[in-house]
Amino acid sequence: MAKLTNALADFACAPLSTTLQTRIVTSLSMLDWIAVGCAGKDEPVSKIVRDMVLAEAGAGQAHLFGGGTAPLRATALVNGTISHALDYDDTHFAHIGHPSVAILPAALALAEAKDKPIVDLLEAALIGMELSIRVGLWLGRAHYQAGFHQTATSGAFGAAVACGRLLGLNPAQMRQVLGLTATRAAGQKSQFGTMGKPYNAGVAAANGLEAAQLITAGFQSNDQALEGTFGFGATHLGENDTDSALQGLGHDWLFELVSHKFHACCHGLHAALEAARELDIAEPEVAEIKVKTHPRWMTVCNQVNPTTGLGAKFSYRTVIAMQALGYDTALPESFTDQICQNPRLKSLADRITVEADNSLSETQAKLALLRRDGARLEAEHDLQTPLALADREDRVRAKAVKLIGRDEVDEIWSMLRTGGRAADLAAHLNG
Amino acid sequence: MAKLTNALADFACAPLSTTLQTRIVTSLSMLDWIAVGCAGKDEPVSKIVRDMVLAEAGAGQAHLFGGGTAPLRATALVNGTISHALDYDDTHFAHIGHPSVAILPAALALAEAKDKPIVDLLEAALIGMELSIRVGLWLGRAHYQAGFHQTATSGAFGAAVACGRLLGLNPAQMRQVLGLTATRAAGQKSQFGTMGKPYNAGVAAANGLEAAQLITAGFQSNDQALEGTFGFGATHLGENDTDSALQGLGHDWLFELVSHKFHACCHGLHAALEAARELDIAEPEVAEIKVKTHPRWMTVCNQVNPTTGLGAKFSYRTVIAMQALGYDTALPESFTDQICQNPRLKSLADRITVEADNSLSETQAKLALLRRDGARLEAEHDLQTPLALADREDRVRAKAVKLIGRDEVDEIWSMLRTGGRAADLAAHLNG
Repeated sequence: MAKLTNALADFACAPLSTTLQTRIVTSLSMLDWIAVGCAGKDEPVSKIVRDMVLAEAGAGQAHLFGGGTAPLRATALVNGTISHALDYDDTHFAHIGHPSVAILPAALALAEAKDKPIVDLLEAALIGMELSIRVGLWLGRAHYQAGFHQTATSGAFGAAVACGRLLGLNPAQMRQVLGLTATRAAGQKSQFGTMGKPYNAGVAAANGLEAAQLITAGFQSNDQALEGTFGFGATHLGENDTDSALQGLGHDWLFELVSHKFHACCHGLHAALEAARELDIAEPEVAEIKVKTHPRWMTVCNQVNPTTGLGAKFSYRTVIAMQALGYDTALPESFTDQICQNPRLKSLADRITVEADNSLSETQAKLALLRRDGARLEAEHDLQTPLALADREDRVRAKAVKLIGRDEVDEIWSMLRTGGRAADLAAHLNG
Repeated sequence: MAKLTNALADFACAPLSTTLQTRIVTSLSMLDWIAVGCAGKDEPVSKIVRDMVLAEAGAGQAHLFGGGTAPLRATALVNGTISHALDYDDTHFAHIGHPSVAILPAALALAEAKDKPIVDLLEAALIGMELSIRVGLWLGRAHYQAGFHQTATSGAFGAAVACGRLLGLNPAQMRQVLGLTATRAAGQKSQFGTMGKPYNAGVAAANGLEAAQLITAGFQSNDQALEGTFGFGATHLGENDTDSALQGLGHDWLFELVSHKFHACCHGLHAALEAARELDIAEPEVAEIKVKTHPRWMTVCNQVNPTTGLGAKFSYRTVIAMQALGYDTALPESFTDQICQNPRLKSLADRITVEADNSLSETQAKLALLRRDGARLEAEHDLQTPLALADREDRVRAKAVKLIGRDEVDEIWSMLRTGGRAADLAAHLNG
């Protein structure tokens, strides 16, 4: 009875056992999250949600992406939404969720308001993100395939627990936090392709933060509302395999396998783009490029001749041609309507074919390049294969530099690695 | 495709066709809601949620139960929670939901802030409550029995549409409002018996209000997120019988069947209490009282010898004895721990037996009184049998007088029946 809840609550309150690698990956996710949030600050959904909150004119407890301050719950909603607006944040393939955008907005806002050191913030963030992945695994693919947006549903639990950690809750209170979150956690996949998708992340962050605040204030919830006949797992069509979800909890950090996006387009295209990087394609020499990918992606991101920048973000042919022609796929602003009309790009795209390959996983792709001189070159990539830590750091930082500039990145990275106050870190969201 | 969504959105935007009875029942629900909200203002959950919001120090856009003002979303959360804190608000048995506590907090806050006339507020409130009942019927018993708290889930849609009406949205925008609400609507029955139950109502009110605000500001959602394969009805285990749910929409007002509580205890006890009223029980003469009720209530509200005031609220024997001895079961403060120790009450309670009767519905009860003189008297009551309108008005007003005093009731009722501004009505929440 309540095995999952008890284990998660104990984990959330226990001293942490981490490696340097865990800590660096956590810091990289924080840097990456700040960078993509700053880059997304002027998206239409960002403005709408931020304006709603600013009109409420509440106490300036924490910084918002793009300027201004707001109370904690409002800040979590806004920053979660904005940081997912470009869909350029990190992904965890184990449960198909985006850990950062649900957990970090809540944790950073609270850490800023409580004037916590960054080291405490990162610890709470890591716990929250790991817990969201574990809850996501517990809910399983069935939950996702039924129509729930794991980023938001499992993310709310992660946000709640990260905030509970920062508020110093004990395991009994943490169980209450999980139970209260169970009555609010929500988010539908039917919002994909609308402003509702990033909003789901903001909602998760705000819900989690609110649950932790209320329990801290003495609110009494059902602390067994996650599991059991009428628990969240049952009502939300979860697989509820507790033993698998808890395996290695506390010493194996599934979070470390988080995947950072290095291209500002659909994640289904990334393995192919990484493989293409290895081939060093020179456009005039290309006779044909054959792309093989997991069948799932054929209906997601294989637009053949997109005519808009948004369409380009879901097109193998376009993004591979863009990269070969020197467009920077790391920059959101590279994806324009005009680029779809570029004759050289269209010519190269017409030499690219895409086919499904059942032998590949969702994170794998294979490329075959046939040159006009008859040479045939092949490359493949699996996003699940961890980058060497130094490579990962180089690439996340390089991406962040493109989005927010070198000075900002150096300053933020220095704080993340050497300490400081969460409030100083949060001030960079206004940048 | 989207038959339900289209019909609901059209209904929400169309001119209303109501009778005097519909309008009076709506006004009675508003009066009743204000009275139970004022009565619940100092409950522990009320203080916790109100204090959280007041600490955010936002713009004073609308009045809170118990004092103070707050921004709209926060007001809806607080007033929804407080008005359900005593579980003394109205109930609709068709979908087992409490319409007022999810819809009125959102509609009144928005109407106050937009300085709307009361007549517009009542129209929007009626539309929202009727729509919540229709959505509740569409989701059906299966949804409730799976573990969802209909008051909150279907209530969020009602709150959203009531607010959309006050904001002057058109049907296309109203479909967006319904779609956006689908990604937030939540609430678990597992919170029953905790502070989470009233909180669910507040969350529904706040979610609905937020959805309407965002769509008004240009937010783009999936307007087909209620129905279909990945729609809310499918993911949330609804029965999704569209034709039944829409039957008579626009001219038959299911809302009129709403049931007001005249006793400050579990609704499962009310039919028996009403039947007992008819018997005019004199304690010394009672040899035995036999209560027959629907089997469902035997595990809900048949505590045999409760020792606390809370327990008394779930005990046939206690509440019938209380009423016979002249305790006012309409007053929340009548239900004390001390009363459970009253020897005369215990003596009478020991002469009361309760048994399940499969031939009764959930809203029916039968009483048989055997007097010491050998006389046998019987009475029965069905909460579904509508009170004559004048009787209903008398009893709702009498209940409200007990909770907030005659002057307040007269003033509020006069505004509700003769017009005025919503803001003047809202000022009475601070009382």
